[in-house]
Amino acid sequence: MAELSERSGVPAPTIRYYLREGLLAPGHFTSPNQAAYDDSHVRRLRLVRALLEVGGLSVEAAKGVISAMAAKSGNEFGVLGQVQYGLSVGRGPAGADLPPDAVERVNDLIARQGWQVRDHNPARAALASALVTLQEIGRDELLAALDSYAAAADTLARRETDELLALDGEEARAEAVIAATVLGDAVLSALRRLAQESAVAERLTPDRSAD
Amino acid sequence: MAELSERSGVPAPTIRYYLREGLLAPGHFTSPNQAAYDDSHVRRLRLVRALLEVGGLSVEAAKGVISAMAAKSGNEFGVLGQVQYGLSVGRGPAGADLPPDAVERVNDLIARQGWQVRDHNPARAALASALVTLQEIGRDELLAALDSYAAAADTLARRETDELLALDGEEARAEAVIAATVLGDAVLSALRRLAQESAVAERLTPDRSAD
Repeated sequence: MAELSERSGVPAPTIRYYLREGLLAPGHFTSPNQAAYDDSHVRRLRLVRALLEVGGLSVEAAKGVISAMAAKSGNEFGVLGQVQYGLSVGRGPAGADLPPDAVERVNDLIARQGWQVRDHNPARAALASALVTLQEIGRDELLAALDSYAAAADTLARRETDELLALDGEEARAEAVIAATVLGDAVLSALRRLAQESAVAERLTPDRSAD
Repeated sequence: MAELSERSGVPAPTIRYYLREGLLAPGHFTSPNQAAYDDSHVRRLRLVRALLEVGGLSVEAAKGVISAMAAKSGNEFGVLGQVQYGLSVGRGPAGADLPPDAVERVNDLIARQGWQVRDHNPARAALASALVTLQEIGRDELLAALDSYAAAADTLARRETDELLALDGEEARAEAVIAATVLGDAVLSALRRLAQESAVAERLTPDRSAD
């Protein structure tokens, strides 16, 4: 346990808590008071931390994602979907509360992009909900730019998927889905802030852009 | 007050709470018990809700953003920066805790993209922190794709900035920054999940992509 804590950088009481919550598989007991942990435990610990700390998931939501990862459904697509859907739990309103025109706008966008998306993908409701808010606060320019955002998302998703399907093993793929979803959001959000500041600086101080 | 509640869809006790917290400017008193509110109050109320509910900001962080919006610094770039930086409060670790190689990786990326970004932009630390986690959980494929993400962020930021600077008035621009930052993140996150499912579906069921 002390070694696992040192190798993963996670304090031992936190590791015990994760074990109790089922976020981490038990070690192999070598004696009644001694359990052995291996590389898979170290990797899983870091993944759990990423879910909780970077992804901001609750312990409940993280358990859902981890158990979806562990589920052997025999259908790769199903597992990947469950992991991704688990990451959205508690993040958006139920679809039933959404105005029909926002739902239709999402359906139209998906059709225009030619995307194959299941009806119960929670990202549909999350997108519709964001569109409702944009409309309420009168940000029509962002609504008009929706297809540029979708095109950017499509380009990144194709690249991510190629890399994902090149990985070996279902667990590695599930981990990659989590990384691309949770950490990808954090990376892209930070990059957009940097790019926004730069774009404004360039427009407001045109002499510097000639450097 | 009853009319303001009805027009904005925000319950009266919540409006009173926002008034007390300084998230909403007081109405114009027409008698000791009667205050008049106008369209600017309705718009501001919706913006505050977007910050708290979509952006997930604390009331403290939302106050920082609103006061940055209200500050007349005489420097447009400064106001936009303050609004954007306010949106990042409490979101990432302090820069001092970050390993130098992650910070350098961010600096290199900014230099490669030719971006003009101030040293104290909190998105630098947020990005460096996400990169540390990606490295820890061994997701090298996402690290390798960093420049594609940056290029997508750059394309969207240029479009957002053109639309932003075409708007009239500092307050409208500050609102647009908030919308592009907070709601833009939510929109892009949802779109990426939709695009990811579609890209996986296309690769795993190739017959359907010929539809």
